[in-house]
Amino acid sequence: MFTGLSAFPLTPISASDVDEQGFSKIVARLVAARVDSMGILGSTGSYAYLTREQRKRIATLAKQLAGDIPVMVCVGAVSTDAILHLADDAQAAGANALLLPAVSYQSLRDDEVFALFETVTRHASVPVCIYDNPGTTHFTFTDELHGRLSSLEGVRSIKIPGVPDSPTAAAERVNVLRHQLRPGVTIGISGDAYAGLGLNAGCEVWYSVCGGLFPEMAKQITEAAAAKDHERVTALSTRLEPLWALFRKHGGSIRVIAAAAGVLGLTDTDCLPRPLQPLSANDIADIARVISALELK
Amino acid sequence: MFTGLSAFPLTPISASDVDEQGFSKIVARLVAARVDSMGILGSTGSYAYLTREQRKRIATLAKQLAGDIPVMVCVGAVSTDAILHLADDAQAAGANALLLPAVSYQSLRDDEVFALFETVTRHASVPVCIYDNPGTTHFTFTDELHGRLSSLEGVRSIKIPGVPDSPTAAAERVNVLRHQLRPGVTIGISGDAYAGLGLNAGCEVWYSVCGGLFPEMAKQITEAAAAKDHERVTALSTRLEPLWALFRKHGGSIRVIAAAAGVLGLTDTDCLPRPLQPLSANDIADIARVISALELK
Repeated sequence: MFTGLSAFPLTPISASDVDEQGFSKIVARLVAARVDSMGILGSTGSYAYLTREQRKRIATLAKQLAGDIPVMVCVGAVSTDAILHLADDAQAAGANALLLPAVSYQSLRDDEVFALFETVTRHASVPVCIYDNPGTTHFTFTDELHGRLSSLEGVRSIKIPGVPDSPTAAAERVNVLRHQLRPGVTIGISGDAYAGLGLNAGCEVWYSVCGGLFPEMAKQITEAAAAKDHERVTALSTRLEPLWALFRKHGGSIRVIAAAAGVLGLTDTDCLPRPLQPLSANDIADIARVISALELK
Repeated sequence: MFTGLSAFPLTPISASDVDEQGFSKIVARLVAARVDSMGILGSTGSYAYLTREQRKRIATLAKQLAGDIPVMVCVGAVSTDAILHLADDAQAAGANALLLPAVSYQSLRDDEVFALFETVTRHASVPVCIYDNPGTTHFTFTDELHGRLSSLEGVRSIKIPGVPDSPTAAAERVNVLRHQLRPGVTIGISGDAYAGLGLNAGCEVWYSVCGGLFPEMAKQITEAAAAKDHERVTALSTRLEPLWALFRKHGGSIRVIAAAAGVLGLTDTDCLPRPLQPLSANDIADIARVISALELK
């Protein structure tokens, strides 16, 4: 399940709770598009803002809707105890894999992160994907640590936060990392603006936020990558530059994707967990124009 | 209560749960030393690693032990909903004030942090202290934002993370901030190595981690500051340089203070919440030597 398009849906939040109806509509689009897998409760899935109970309900709902599409559940938390409880809940809900970030409050040392992954992989009976996301977790994985972690039997993939800006440098970066890894552990690109570069550089999977809302468009890109049609991958992802520009403008993808889900009528345009606030009406109108111009649906 | 020595005790964690006996021993020292207030469940109090239930129990226990010493409870969390529940719990336990950091997962904008403080101060019936700790929360307050926040009726103090290294620059920094604040809102220094500089620069309170374990020593410093004996403040805090060196070496105070609590026999030397790991036996022996050389008790 750690290849192709792994779509990361938003978890919309209403004033008081998770918007299960909106979430179901979003997941239904992923099922219809036959994405290769789903990564629920990722960063855009707002795991960090939800209670254990809410996360359990969303995992259960995703599995009910996903049919035979594998579901990976993020079990990120600050404390190891909380992570183990979340892993139990995710597995009880039927998760096919766990996504594990190194969320820090006090800064973490490499040996602490290694011990965390050792504990979780020993505890869990499903495979684990390393979630390398320094922008939100404030922990930076070295390639050496990725290598050590990939030696753990349960570790099967790494979600990396991006690649350098040129095709040559991106290929070099993916190669250097791959040489550290146990064979069979896949490398997945995230940071949607890097998807084309990452896939052309040899990443086997796209852990995709915009694929969580616009799966048809994202699937065209991963299918072109699977066919090794580098030019088409580049053309399709370059075409989406106005979307990447919105992500940059709004400090990441979540506020844009939440607004876009509202523009599509799947949720309210105010569907972010507080303290996050929705974008302004003007910004939402800009997003609607980009969606329309790019014919995203 | 937002003046003098506010002692921030460690919450020791055993293999499976909070070590209430160890916590009680630590708090008993603060009561015996007659600290001016306590700040429980701060960063060294490991709030970020504990469940809502654990935080409720620790707040209740602290109030039982504190007698007439005011207790401030940190209610930090990523989501606003969680913070409001924690505020309710803290108030039900008898908290005299709340300490509120801007914990970020997705990066926060100033207007989001303002709305958070507005919501919490409106919800709470006890005063709130702003917890400015960019090293763990990854949100940086501007002086302008501190000024806006200080206009909220419930805000009564700001815990700042440090001051520049020279007495002149420190005084200038505290003055610049003070000019932004509503009169009566106090400024508290934290980052123990800056305590002498901060107090001499006009901070009215020391939010003190080492005061949470060594209250007698910390109280000498705040009493010298209250007597405006700048030279004695400087001498007493400079004397502690070997302790500050340990904090720097181990990436902050928590690992050192946890080991020190073990050295004093108050807790096990392994009393950090996982994924944090205890320091090595050699490092703990170094810490024991510094405690002995400085005659800390």
